Amino acid sequence: MTPRYQGIVPPMVTPLRDRDTLDVEGLERLIEHMIEGGVSGIFALGTTGEAPSLSHRLRREVATHTCRAVRGRVPVLIGITDTSLVESAQLAQAAAESGADAVVASAPFYFPAGQPELREFVEQLLPELPLPLMLYNMPALTKVTFSREVVGWAMDREEIVGLKDSSGDLVYFRRMRHLASERRPDWSLLVGPEELLAETVLMGGHGGVNGGANLFPQLYVDLFEEARDGNLERTRLLSERVLAVSEAIYTVGRHGSAIIKGLKGALALTGVCGDFMAPPFHHFLAEDRAILEERLERLESSRQSDP
Amino acid sequence: MTPRYQGIVPPMVTPLRDRDTLDVEGLERLIEHMIEGGVSGIFALGTTGEAPSLSHRLRREVATHTCRAVRGRVPVLIGITDTSLVESAQLAQAAAESGADAVVASAPFYFPAGQPELREFVEQLLPELPLPLMLYNMPALTKVTFSREVVGWAMDREEIVGLKDSSGDLVYFRRMRHLASERRPDWSLLVGPEELLAETVLMGGHGGVNGGANLFPQLYVDLFEEARDGNLERTRLLSERVLAVSEAIYTVGRHGSAIIKGLKGALALTGVCGDFMAPPFHHFLAEDRAILEERLERLESSRQSDP
Amino acid sequence: MTPRYQGIVPPMVTPLRDRDTLDVEGLERLIEHMIEGGVSGIFALGTTGEAPSLSHRLRREVATHTCRAVRGRVPVLIGITDTSLVESAQLAQAAAESGADAVVASAPFYFPAGQPELREFVEQLLPELPLPLMLYNMPALTKVTFSREVVGWAMDREEIVGLKDSSGDLVYFRRMRHLASERRPDWSLLVGPEELLAETVLMGGHGGVNGGANLFPQLYVDLFEEARDGNLERTRLLSERVLAVSEAIYTVGRHGSAIIKGLKGALALTGVCGDFMAPPFHHFLAEDRAILEERLERLESSRQSDP
Amino acid sequence: MTPRYQGIVPPMVTPLRDRDTLDVEGLERLIEHMIEGGVSGIFALGTTGEAPSLSHRLRREVATHTCRAVRGRVPVLIGITDTSLVESAQLAQAAAESGADAVVASAPFYFPAGQPELREFVEQLLPELPLPLMLYNMPALTKVTFSREVVGWAMDREEIVGLKDSSGDLVYFRRMRHLASERRPDWSLLVGPEELLAETVLMGGHGGVNGGANLFPQLYVDLFEEARDGNLERTRLLSERVLAVSEAIYTVGRHGSAIIKGLKGALALTGVCGDFMAPPFHHFLAEDRAILEERLERLESSRQSDP
Repeated sequence: MTPRYQGIVPPMVTPLRDRDTLDVEGLERLIEHMIEGGVSGIFALGTTGEAPSLSHRLRREVATHTCRAVRGRVPVLIGITDTSLVESAQLAQAAAESGADAVVASAPFYFPAGQPELREFVEQLLPELPLPLMLYNMPALTKVTFSREVVGWAMDREEIVGLKDSSGDLVYFRRMRHLASERRPDWSLLVGPEELLAETVLMGGHGGVNGGANLFPQLYVDLFEEARDGNLERTRLLSERVLAVSEAIYTVGRHGSAIIKGLKGALALTGVCGDFMAPPFHHFLAEDRAILEERLERLESSRQSDP
Repeated sequence: MTPRYQGIVPPMVTPLRDRDTLDVEGLERLIEHMIEGGVSGIFALGTTGEAPSLSHRLRREVATHTCRAVRGRVPVLIGITDTSLVESAQLAQAAAESGADAVVASAPFYFPAGQPELREFVEQLLPELPLPLMLYNMPALTKVTFSREVVGWAMDREEIVGLKDSSGDLVYFRRMRHLASERRPDWSLLVGPEELLAETVLMGGHGGVNGGANLFPQLYVDLFEEARDGNLERTRLLSERVLAVSEAIYTVGRHGSAIIKGLKGALALTGVCGDFMAPPFHHFLAEDRAILEERLERLESSRQSDP
Repeated sequence: MTPRYQGIVPPMVTPLRDRDTLDVEGLERLIEHMIEGGVSGIFALGTTGEAPSLSHRLRREVATHTCRAVRGRVPVLIGITDTSLVESAQLAQAAAESGADAVVASAPFYFPAGQPELREFVEQLLPELPLPLMLYNMPALTKVTFSREVVGWAMDREEIVGLKDSSGDLVYFRRMRHLASERRPDWSLLVGPEELLAETVLMGGHGGVNGGANLFPQLYVDLFEEARDGNLERTRLLSERVLAVSEAIYTVGRHGSAIIKGLKGALALTGVCGDFMAPPFHHFLAEDRAILEERLERLESSRQSDP
Repeated sequence: MTPRYQGIVPPMVTPLRDRDTLDVEGLERLIEHMIEGGVSGIFALGTTGEAPSLSHRLRREVATHTCRAVRGRVPVLIGITDTSLVESAQLAQAAAESGADAVVASAPFYFPAGQPELREFVEQLLPELPLPLMLYNMPALTKVTFSREVVGWAMDREEIVGLKDSSGDLVYFRRMRHLASERRPDWSLLVGPEELLAETVLMGGHGGVNGGANLFPQLYVDLFEEARDGNLERTRLLSERVLAVSEAIYTVGRHGSAIIKGLKGALALTGVCGDFMAPPFHHFLAEDRAILEERLERLESSRQSDP
């Protein structure tokens, strides 16, 4: 009765050639990079994957190519979040046909659903899903939190297997973790913000869906393992490094897009994949790219001098 | 050099048989009902039309059937708002093929774009559009306002023909109206909230995209005309009636969905079309429907005793 | 049974010598300036008066000197908004002793009260008040709106005489106006944002508590009268001028403080009173003052060329 | 160079006889209760102390009686948060005269200050303060966060000795902790929400300003010590107990006031002090009190069966 999803499951960025063309080679390199780093799974088509900015055709293509490149070495989770239940169900179908392991859905995000409406939405979605479902709490972008009542209800549904929480609200995380420990010991509780990976795993969380693990997968895997094993000193040290990464990489741009821009920009600078972004965003221009490059170099040199 | 869109352009509800099936007969009856009421245009696939909750296939079908049923008697505007530029462009293509007059787009609504990113999004969208574009300001649901700078930029693009403002912020509306009067006398400034139709038209606005005009089109058309002609006493009287409608119809349910639920429920009770709603919403159950019915009757009887 | 407060009741800025010293001469000049402009009352110690930034001692002094300088020529309203009911009651006592006409209170603004708690707060405050009370709806700064239920309850209390609404939400204003017309024809409904003065008075509002009337009292008085008398063309013209004033004066600074800073700065440039501000704000520095000066000159010259 | 404030510093509730009368005996019992529980300090006149709801006279009385009752056994911190710098300075004076150890101030909370304005506010406040200052980050109620830049600036001022963070945003806490470890190893970083005490102390935080420590001081002190000493298993166990307390006590009421109401209610039920609250709040009525009593009993019995 241990949770199926534990450890680091990076929310994969989507390498693009242009706004409607997948960069298949970039995707393959990125996947190898992460698997070599020891990740426990791959989550495609989440927020970091810019899923809502991609056409539905392209989303299906991402699902197919991700599963093909992963070749069963780790589980693949596919994001199916959409404002339309019908579209979500179709994406789930495509995910299953591609060989994915599970699907991930947050609340429909145009109309802010009341909690009973949100529960009903999930209830209507479930019979359409050929794969297990992980809930994805992302109130900053969906306007809606999965309430304790709705999560409690979800724990009664076997086909729902966990919760990824990107709220940044650790009180919420603690409460949901507590609920799961009482009612669904097989549920996975994964945290979104990488700055909170150490804290949550120390207190019983099962891992992280952390964007930075696209770039430095091994660092995040190491941190997870040290925290899981209760090695406090190493946990603190590695957690400081993760903080340093997020401060360096995610703060170059001025808008909310700075995080994904910085991540894709760093992946481009380290040769993993290109930094093309789907509208409404675009990659950094020369000046910001230079800042990012310099920061990456400083990260690298401080890492080499670390114990 | 007068604005092309003036008067009442109802944001049409989408009559549904089930969550992925259009109620074509209901749609036709609804369109006849509104055209008989004197509306100046029809806006399909907006917020009131539940567009984000519909599959893209169904959205295209709505565009086709709306244009077919309208038969050129009034202009048809088609909402193409989406989080993906590629999907928006495809919807615009479908709208043009259906014979629509213009398309309407708000900001992409998952990632909150910074203002320069928003401008760029519209800039990249424009060459993909076979029809003129009306902007749609809806910050409560898209998280983003079209800033004065972006609207000013848009006024320099001939293919952008106006702004529908659903912010409820009349200071904003006034400023945009002022800007248009100086720079684009052919721009249409239409207001979303029907409770503000009187005020905005008295002060120079060009009309309303008001949900209640699905139900009582003539009332809204009359109010628009009286306000446009400066008949203050009649404007006040009719505006009170519109207020009474919105208080009666939109306040039965408990969540944000109460407005569309109430509107569809009232259309069902008056025999225009069914009240099926796409997830995450559903129609009123018996108790709420009874309340709504009683309120509709009271509205009707107070209307008959009015001057 | 007409409302006691009608027309323009400027929310007076508080002329200061330093952060705890009233500029009595400036105050007197400002009051003469406004009374000469035809205002119907003076509201001291509101938001524009920086009341929450002043010591309680200084607030009492403002009340005393305002009443003394006004000499009964128009009613004086004194803001008593505070987080502590006891302090509000003491301010009301001081206001009565100074000879004020009424007091004005918004919601306590540290803890956001639930609506029943808000009603109860007002209920407990009432017996402590030696003067009639006007409610002041200012949700942007108090976090709390006076709900329809609480306003409805307030209409049953004779000692509550009206509502000043600074929410900027004209739908709310309309609904409260409607309620008052049915239940308390003697209630005053005054609007805060000057950009909405024309609209609200055309539709039955009783006047404005508009910051710009510190500076150009006659302009606001004229606009009020034209709108009240239903002269649409003059109303539109003067309303455009008010818009031009607010765009010129309130948009120089970068923070929320820009409005009061701009207003005090313009009063200093026109010689009415100094521009010292209580912390956390301070007056414009040279650069911003130069921008403001140039804008004031442009306003002046465009006004002279107007009909 | 270790931080002066470490461990549990409860934000003391203010026992009241009525809205302007201190319950001195209750205060004394409460202080003994907390000191016996091993707390490291006492913070009077914070949010939990309902400070903004009390008259300034009463706030000074609280400062005096708290210092008198504590008799130097632990440091006393006095909240001086106010919207008026002059009032804050006077409270600080009273705190010093009472023999307090430090004062605590959050941002002025009516006008939301821009960050440069906030820095300047603190800069102007400092010379008025006879005691060291601890900053208090409480954006939910003050609308404003102390930005990284302002906190960085504050670290250069010797008279500022730490930060109490009640934002609930652990990413913020981590970043401020990191900054302090580089620049001010003597700064205290204390966390507000008790549900996050374990996590923050495990990762290097210095303690908690936790409301529940009014009620069960020893539990919070034990948790702090176990976390500080890196005893993970005990930390997890005690942290679960703290979670159980907060779920039981803070969730009876319906509004934001539920937390303080629950805390005061529980203190009354356990005989420590009365539950009178200053407006806009009031104590629980019979029904809610019964729920709270039953929950307290359940807490007690589950505690006795715990290891």
